Amino acid sequence: MELLNALKWRYATKKMNGKAVAESDVTNIIEAAHLAPTSSGLQPFEIIVISNKELREKILPIANNQQQIVDGSHLLVFAAWDNYTKERIENVFARTAAERGIPANAMDDYKNMLLNIYVTRDAETNYAHAARQAYIGFGMAIAAAAELKVDATPMEGFNTVELDKLLGLDKKGLKSVTILPLGYRDAENDWLVNMKKVRTPLDQFVTELK
Amino acid sequence: MELLNALKWRYATKKMNGKAVAESDVTNIIEAAHLAPTSSGLQPFEIIVISNKELREKILPIANNQQQIVDGSHLLVFAAWDNYTKERIENVFARTAAERGIPANAMDDYKNMLLNIYVTRDAETNYAHAARQAYIGFGMAIAAAAELKVDATPMEGFNTVELDKLLGLDKKGLKSVTILPLGYRDAENDWLVNMKKVRTPLDQFVTELK
Repeated sequence: MELLNALKWRYATKKMNGKAVAESDVTNIIEAAHLAPTSSGLQPFEIIVISNKELREKILPIANNQQQIVDGSHLLVFAAWDNYTKERIENVFARTAAERGIPANAMDDYKNMLLNIYVTRDAETNYAHAARQAYIGFGMAIAAAAELKVDATPMEGFNTVELDKLLGLDKKGLKSVTILPLGYRDAENDWLVNMKKVRTPLDQFVTELK
Repeated sequence: MELLNALKWRYATKKMNGKAVAESDVTNIIEAAHLAPTSSGLQPFEIIVISNKELREKILPIANNQQQIVDGSHLLVFAAWDNYTKERIENVFARTAAERGIPANAMDDYKNMLLNIYVTRDAETNYAHAARQAYIGFGMAIAAAAELKVDATPMEGFNTVELDKLLGLDKKGLKSVTILPLGYRDAENDWLVNMKKVRTPLDQFVTELK
């Protein structure tokens, strides 16, 4: 299975060699995140793709100086909606109806149910829910990179407030959730590359109820 | 690309036909979640695989009577640690050192940093973090199912407290996060199967900073 082979091949690359990832590969990695399922199909997150080196150098100190950010060629920032709003939800339903060629009000019952849940709920709870959806897309991007033999290092260790300010995400109603440098492993200088991948023993990870 | 083809093929199946998924396919779907990366490799979640039909019938009313739960053949429950504890973190590091054949104290600096972050933090914040990791594995399982042409319906709509009680997850220090029925689409009776997959237009989903 392609996916299992890819997941076995990948690891959280610690040292990258500076070689640039082809734009076509970056496009496919983003496409995997774009196709990821999300709760009610609302897709409450966006991706910022940063190839600009100066900007990545500015991000370095607010991300614990993790060198993959500059030793890779692209940095993906996964940023979730800071809130579910009436406008955002209405937009998704209007677009869905238009693209499917069904009447604009055909899904009104479902839409109104979602509006009742989300629009009355506090922004913090809504953001937490949106961020979870971003993690599904984050996983798909990681899997896609591995399938393309592109190295990637999933990262949560950065100052989200400072990154939001630097990228102007706060003004777009977004909050950064995770970042993903893309590049290629520097196998000679990466302490992790030859270490065994360790996972929870399957009998502790899975419980079967037959 | 295998992954993109799989993600285009899949959809949130609304009607399943009762045909059973082969155990070897279920095993591979779980393996994808098992290989998923998690923060610091702590893997703070487990999967409960329920093929028992009576048990799935009991779950039905606490999951908004979504029929895929019984019309599929297996239900995967993704359940995250209710908290990061000293014991859980120590266990991961002890196992990692043993499997890699390195001294038990070789990663003490990193382990102590994590203990300082997690063990002092409230359970609710720790659970929220663990649940996010479960979403990465959830995404990998969805992708793996699609690659195997197994249908799956990602679900958040269920009463987590009641499910935890029914499955005894509370006693194991786990909280259910998401569920995933596995089965096969009943194409003649599924209203969604022929609908166009709609996603946010790419120019709104991606921002490039070159």
